[in-house]
Amino acid sequence: MTGGELEHPRVEELDVGPVLLALADGNRRRVVAELAERPDEERLCASFDLPVSKSSRTRHWRVLREAGLVYQRDAGNGLYMRLRKEDLERRFPGLIQAVVAADQGRG
Amino acid sequence: MTGGELEHPRVEELDVGPVLLALADGNRRRVVAELAERPDEERLCASFDLPVSKSSRTRHWRVLREAGLVYQRDAGNGLYMRLRKEDLERRFPGLIQAVVAADQGRG
Repeated sequence: MTGGELEHPRVEELDVGPVLLALADGNRRRVVAELAERPDEERLCASFDLPVSKSSRTRHWRVLREAGLVYQRDAGNGLYMRLRKEDLERRFPGLIQAVVAADQGRG
Repeated sequence: MTGGELEHPRVEELDVGPVLLALADGNRRRVVAELAERPDEERLCASFDLPVSKSSRTRHWRVLREAGLVYQRDAGNGLYMRLRKEDLERRFPGLIQAVVAADQGRG
């Protein structure tokens, strides 16, 4: 690993169990839903408005990253995140879309 | 409640969080996948071959039932289960299909 790089599972290593566990949490689902709106963009982690403590935020990022839902990058001036859209779609076709839609249908 | 009836959430009460949490477990996912193969049939709970203790099985049935994934019925001669296919499809279109396919794609 070079500076700024965090560990991420490879696409072949992605497992639906940890992905579903990560998505079972409403705050993490919200982050994934917001990232899914602009899947080709990186977003500053600090820009997510979650009603949780700093340590909880850090834990949420780690859970999302270790499940393979997001790529996270330390750019020096802050942590950035983007959805692993292609990897997720390749391994779990339709899953992220269905999960995001499930929440949107609640309103 | 009359005899043999267990408590189940109503379709309007189904929430994607508990559903994803229930599906995050491989044994429970396997049960849902097997039920999804014949969604209109009730199946004897004892007929599922899970590598877990009896108390774990009971817990898995409860988690599935309370999340709203299955209807469970005590028929006197045993507990029966069926997938709440229509309810799940109405509230979370495509979700169960995507989760079942995600596991099948592993092989």
